[in-house]
Amino acid sequence: MTPPASPEAADRLGWATTETDWRRVLERDDVDLVDVCTPGDTHAEIAIAALEAGKHVLCEKPLANSVPEAEAMAAAAARAARDGVRSMVGFTYRRVPAIGLARQLVADGRLGEIRHVRAQYLQDWIADPAAPMSWRLEKDKAGSGALGDIGAHVVDLTQHITGQRLTGVSALLETFVKERPLPAAAGSLSGVAGEGTGLVTVDDAAVFTARFTGGALGVFEATRFALGRKNAIRIEINGSRGSLAFDFEDMNVLHFFDGDEPGETAGFRRIVVTEPGHPYVGHWWPAGHGLGYEHGFTHQVVDLVTAIAQGADPAPSFADGLQVQRVLDAVERSAADQARWTEIPGDD
Amino acid sequence: MTPPASPEAADRLGWATTETDWRRVLERDDVDLVDVCTPGDTHAEIAIAALEAGKHVLCEKPLANSVPEAEAMAAAAARAARDGVRSMVGFTYRRVPAIGLARQLVADGRLGEIRHVRAQYLQDWIADPAAPMSWRLEKDKAGSGALGDIGAHVVDLTQHITGQRLTGVSALLETFVKERPLPAAAGSLSGVAGEGTGLVTVDDAAVFTARFTGGALGVFEATRFALGRKNAIRIEINGSRGSLAFDFEDMNVLHFFDGDEPGETAGFRRIVVTEPGHPYVGHWWPAGHGLGYEHGFTHQVVDLVTAIAQGADPAPSFADGLQVQRVLDAVERSAADQARWTEIPGDD
Amino acid sequence: MTPPASPEAADRLGWATTETDWRRVLERDDVDLVDVCTPGDTHAEIAIAALEAGKHVLCEKPLANSVPEAEAMAAAAARAARDGVRSMVGFTYRRVPAIGLARQLVADGRLGEIRHVRAQYLQDWIADPAAPMSWRLEKDKAGSGALGDIGAHVVDLTQHITGQRLTGVSALLETFVKERPLPAAAGSLSGVAGEGTGLVTVDDAAVFTARFTGGALGVFEATRFALGRKNAIRIEINGSRGSLAFDFEDMNVLHFFDGDEPGETAGFRRIVVTEPGHPYVGHWWPAGHGLGYEHGFTHQVVDLVTAIAQGADPAPSFADGLQVQRVLDAVERSAADQARWTEIPGDD
Amino acid sequence: MTPPASPEAADRLGWATTETDWRRVLERDDVDLVDVCTPGDTHAEIAIAALEAGKHVLCEKPLANSVPEAEAMAAAAARAARDGVRSMVGFTYRRVPAIGLARQLVADGRLGEIRHVRAQYLQDWIADPAAPMSWRLEKDKAGSGALGDIGAHVVDLTQHITGQRLTGVSALLETFVKERPLPAAAGSLSGVAGEGTGLVTVDDAAVFTARFTGGALGVFEATRFALGRKNAIRIEINGSRGSLAFDFEDMNVLHFFDGDEPGETAGFRRIVVTEPGHPYVGHWWPAGHGLGYEHGFTHQVVDLVTAIAQGADPAPSFADGLQVQRVLDAVERSAADQARWTEIPGDD
Repeated sequence: MTPPASPEAADRLGWATTETDWRRVLERDDVDLVDVCTPGDTHAEIAIAALEAGKHVLCEKPLANSVPEAEAMAAAAARAARDGVRSMVGFTYRRVPAIGLARQLVADGRLGEIRHVRAQYLQDWIADPAAPMSWRLEKDKAGSGALGDIGAHVVDLTQHITGQRLTGVSALLETFVKERPLPAAAGSLSGVAGEGTGLVTVDDAAVFTARFTGGALGVFEATRFALGRKNAIRIEINGSRGSLAFDFEDMNVLHFFDGDEPGETAGFRRIVVTEPGHPYVGHWWPAGHGLGYEHGFTHQVVDLVTAIAQGADPAPSFADGLQVQRVLDAVERSAADQARWTEIPGDD
Repeated sequence: MTPPASPEAADRLGWATTETDWRRVLERDDVDLVDVCTPGDTHAEIAIAALEAGKHVLCEKPLANSVPEAEAMAAAAARAARDGVRSMVGFTYRRVPAIGLARQLVADGRLGEIRHVRAQYLQDWIADPAAPMSWRLEKDKAGSGALGDIGAHVVDLTQHITGQRLTGVSALLETFVKERPLPAAAGSLSGVAGEGTGLVTVDDAAVFTARFTGGALGVFEATRFALGRKNAIRIEINGSRGSLAFDFEDMNVLHFFDGDEPGETAGFRRIVVTEPGHPYVGHWWPAGHGLGYEHGFTHQVVDLVTAIAQGADPAPSFADGLQVQRVLDAVERSAADQARWTEIPGDD
Repeated sequence: MTPPASPEAADRLGWATTETDWRRVLERDDVDLVDVCTPGDTHAEIAIAALEAGKHVLCEKPLANSVPEAEAMAAAAARAARDGVRSMVGFTYRRVPAIGLARQLVADGRLGEIRHVRAQYLQDWIADPAAPMSWRLEKDKAGSGALGDIGAHVVDLTQHITGQRLTGVSALLETFVKERPLPAAAGSLSGVAGEGTGLVTVDDAAVFTARFTGGALGVFEATRFALGRKNAIRIEINGSRGSLAFDFEDMNVLHFFDGDEPGETAGFRRIVVTEPGHPYVGHWWPAGHGLGYEHGFTHQVVDLVTAIAQGADPAPSFADGLQVQRVLDAVERSAADQARWTEIPGDD
Repeated sequence: MTPPASPEAADRLGWATTETDWRRVLERDDVDLVDVCTPGDTHAEIAIAALEAGKHVLCEKPLANSVPEAEAMAAAAARAARDGVRSMVGFTYRRVPAIGLARQLVADGRLGEIRHVRAQYLQDWIADPAAPMSWRLEKDKAGSGALGDIGAHVVDLTQHITGQRLTGVSALLETFVKERPLPAAAGSLSGVAGEGTGLVTVDDAAVFTARFTGGALGVFEATRFALGRKNAIRIEINGSRGSLAFDFEDMNVLHFFDGDEPGETAGFRRIVVTEPGHPYVGHWWPAGHGLGYEHGFTHQVVDLVTAIAQGADPAPSFADGLQVQRVLDAVERSAADQARWTEIPGDD
C-alpha cells in the first residue's frame, strides 16, 4: 500500500503501469473502470469522484463506513447511471454457483413461504490475543469489525437468496480482545507483531436476531473468534415447502430438502453444484471438478463488463450496498442501546 | 391418558398395577419414587405433594409452567432433601455420552475461555399447517411452545457443558400457524385431524441472543418449523483454546477442535463417543456400536437411584430446573417487550 | 464362560436359573428356544442337538466354521422345520431400519439394474500389536478372523439388500501381526496381556472382488486394522436408476441418490431413517430420536418369536447361513491359491 | 480438434498463433515446451519427436496406450534429460494441497506402517445407456476405459502418497453398455447422440485388489457408472500409527486420524487444507478460501517451469508414467485371465 511497493508489485505481476495516487487514475483516458479496494473510510470519496469522472466503478463491500457516505454514493451512482456510467458493489459470494442455485430454488417456489433464516460467518484469524493490530481493527478505517467485514456478506446473501429484506434487528456486539500488539514496521510481513500495543476499536463479533419482510425469523452471527472455522459462511433457510443449507467450507455443495417428497424417502440432498446447468458452471469444468474462491471474482467481473457492454445496470447496485449499510447501522445502534429492537428503513 | 386406557396399557406392558388418580399413588406404601410425566400445568401440584408424602421425585422438563410454580417446587425439594427425600428434573440429554464428554473437555480447560455458544433445537413436526392441535400447543397446559418444550433443553445443555449460566437475553417469539384443525376424538390416533379448529396459544419458534456469566455471546433457536430437521439439537462452543460441535441427529459423535495443535494438522476431530472410557459407555457395547435415544433415560434412572441409595442429591436439581425456568421467563418477557434486553436473576 | 462365573452373572443380571453344560439346557422342558452364542467350533454340535431335541434355535453368525458343518446344520434345520421347529441365523444388522429401507428401495426398483456393490467392514480393535490373544484369533475356535467375524455380515447384507447372490470371488487374506501376547489369566479382564505369546492363526484382514448374480461388480473388505474406524459397516450400491450409501457409524441415516431427478436438483439424500413408516421404527421413538446397536437384536427376537407364534419360517434361515459360509469358504480357497477366481455353488 | 475450429478458438481465447499439425509445432523456434493433450494413441509419437527436437514435454496421463509405447517414451525422456530437456507426465491431482499434505504425513511417519489402501475413482457420466460414443470409448484411441482414464490417477496417487509401488494385482473389468448411439456430426456439441450405433471397446469399470511393496493390501475401483458420484477420487489409508481419508468432491479437506492420541479424544480430524503452511497454499487465498480443480494444473505448470529453469528433473517423470502403465497392463492381463494374480515388474 506504500508507494515504494508499487513498482515492485507491477513488475512481479506484469502490470504495464501503476499509480499511487488514485486521483491520477481518474485523470487517465485509458481507464474505463475503477475497482475500489481501499479501506472503507476512503470508499465514498474515491467512488464518487470516479463516477463523476465518468468511470464505471466496482466498489468493495461494505459500501462505506456510514449510512450518510453510502447515501451519497448511491445518489452519485444514480446520477451517473443516467449517463450510462455503471456501478456495482462487490458482494462476490452471490456468484458462488451454490448460492445462485439457492436463489433459483427460492424464486421457483421450492421453499414455499420462508420461516427461518440462520446465517453465520465464522472465522478465527484473530482468536489468538497475540495476533497484531491491523487497519481492520480500527474503527476510523474499517468502520466496524466482523460486522462490516463479514457480517455484511451474510446480510447481503440471505436477502439475495430469499428476495426479501431485513426489517429490524436486535443486536449484541463484543470486543473480546481490547488491546493488541502493534504490527512490525510497515513493509514487513503482515501478521507479525512489533513493539507497543494498540486499541481495538471495532467489534470482534456481532450477533443479532432479525425479521424479514415476509415474516421470517432471522438469526445472524459474524465472528473472527470461532476457533477452527476458517471461512465458514453458513446459511440455512427453512420454508413451508423446503429447506436449504450451505457452508462455504464446502463451497461446491448445496443441501436441499424437498418437503413435497414422501417422508420415507425425504432427506437433505447433497447437490454437487457443478452441473452444466448450474449458474456459471457451464463455462468451467466437467461435473464434479469443483470451483474455488476466486471464481466468484471472475464471475463478478464478467457480469460487470457484460452489463457495461449491454448498457444495463449490474447488480448488486450501490443502492443494494446502501441497504446493507442501513442494516449494519441498525445493528450498531441496537447494540449500543442494550439490544433494543431497531427498525431498518426501507427503500425510498 | 384417559382412565379406560390404563388397564389395557398395563396388560400390554406387563405392569402389575396401575392408578388413574395420582393422589392414590402417593398413598401407596409400595411406591418410593414418582416420575411426573404429565403436562406442565400439573407438575407443581403433583411434585410438591409427592415430596411432602416422602416420595422421591423425577419431574419432566421444563420443571413448571411459571417461575412461581418452579420456585414453590424448588422450595419443596429443599425441604424434602433435609429428610433424605431426593428430587431431579428430567433433562435427559445431559446423559448422552457426547454431551458428557463435551462437559469434561470444558472442565479440563481444553476450550479455554468460552467466547461463543450457538445452540439450536430444530424439529419440523408441525411445519405442516394441517397438523392438528395438541395439548402442547395450548398455553394453559404446556406453558409455552417450542421455547419450553425444546428450547429448555438447549438452555440447560449449554449451561451444563460450559458450567456457566445465562445472565440476560433478547428474544423474539413467533407463532407461524395461529389456528389448526382439532384432533380427531380422544382415544384415536394422535396426529389425525378431526372437525373444527382451535387456536394455537403458544410460540412455534423462539430465537434469542444471550450472555453467559463468563462473557460469552450466546445465540439460541428453538423451532418446530425447520423442515427436514427431525430432532437436531445442535450445539457449538468456541473458546480461546478449542471448539466443540454436536448434533443429536448424529448423537454418538462429538466434534472437537484442539487449538493447541499446529495449524497444518489441526481440524475438527470427529470423536465417535463409544470408547469404554467415555461417560456411561463402559456399561454398554464395544466401541463403534452406538447408543440410541433411550439410553439417556436409562442413565438418568441409574444416576437417580444410585443417588437415592447413596443418600446424595442427584443433578439436575429442582433448583437447576428453576434457573432454566427463569431463563424461559426472561425470554417471554423480552419477546413481549420488543426484544428488550432482560436480565436473568442469579441464585439467591 | 467358566462355570464359577455363571451363578455370579445370574445373580447380577437377575436370571432365575443357569446351566453350565449346554446338554442340560436341551433336557429342560421349560426351555423352548436356544440361542447359540458360543465360539464357532461348537455351533454345529449344539444347534443340531437342540433342533433334534425340538428346541427352536437362534444361532450366531457365521453359522459354522466350515461348509460341511453348515451343510449339516442346514439339513438339520430343514428336518426340524417339518415338525414346526424353527431356526434362524443371527445376522442382526439386517434389522437396522436403514438397511431395511435400502432393501425396500432396491425391491421397488428405485435403483434399477445393480452395477456396483462396494462394502467394507472396518474395525481397529487389534491394530495395536500389543493387543493380546483371544479365541477370535484362533482358527480352531473361530474358523476365520475378520473374514467370518465381520466379513460375513457385509456378504449377508449386500445379498439381502440387492436380493442377489455372489457367484464368484477373487480374494487376498492377510495376517499383519502373527504373534501376540497371551491374555492374562482366565477370569481376568479381557484385553489385558499376560505372560508368553501365542500364534494368530486367522486372517487380520480380507479383501475380495466379486460378481453378483445380476452381473454387478462387488468389492469387499473386512479388517480389524483400519485405525480410527470403530464399527464402520459401509455399503454403497450403484444402479442404473439410483444409488445408496450407508455407514453404521451413522446408523440412523441412509443416503439415496435418485437418478430420475433432474441433474440440477439431484444429490444424495440424507434420509434420517426414523420416520414412523420406516422398517421397525413405528414401535419406537418420534422422528429424529435415533435407535442404537441393540435394537437390531430386539427386532431379531421379535421377528423370531413372531414367526414361531405364527408357524412360519423366520429369515435369515440356516440355508442362508450356509450360503454365506460357501462365500467365506470360496474366499479362503481363492486366497490360498493366489487370488484365483473361485465360483460359489448356488442353491441346490 | 478439427482444423477449422482452430482459428476460431485462437480468436476467442486470445492466442497469438495456432498450428493444426503438431509437426509444425516442433519446427518452431519460439516453442520451448510442448503439452501433449491428444488422445492416448498419439502420445508416444508426438512426445518422442518433441523430446528429440529438444522441446521440454508435458504429457497427459496415462502416458501411453501400451507398455511398449511407454517404454519408448521413458527411454526418449532419459536420453533427452542428458541434454537438459525435461519431461513430465500430467498426474495433476498430485498437486492438490490435501494430497500433498497426505504425502507429507506419511513421509513424516505419522501413519506408521501402511496396512490398507482403498482407493476409488467414481464418476457417472456414461451411466445412462443413451450417452453417445466418444473417442474415450474406443480402445484404438483411448487404450482402455475407466481403467486408464481415471484408474491411472488413483494408482499414481496412492503410490505417490505412500511412497510405495504396487507389486501385483487381481482384477475384473466390465463393460456394462456394449453399444451406444454414435455422436452427432463432428463439430456439433459433445454429448449429443446422432444416428446409428457404435461398439464400446473399452472397460466401463475396473476393480482390483493389490499388494504394495511394504505389504499393504490395496483395493481399487474405477468406474463411470457410479450414479450420483461426479468426480469422487476417494482414498483411505490405514497405518499402524494413523489413518487418512480424502474425497476430491470435498477437495480442500483431508481427514487424519492420529493413533497416538488418547482414545477418548481421538477422531478423524477434518483438516481444511488452506493454511499458509500447506503445500502450494501460501501463494493463494487466506485460510478457508478454498482452491478449485484448476489449481492442480497451475501448480503443475509452475513446478515444471521451475524445474526447467533450475535444470532439475520434474516429477512425475515418464519413468513414473511407465510404471503406472505397467500396473494398468497387469490389470488388463489379470482380468483377461479370470482375475489371476499378476505381478508388476519393478524398476530396472
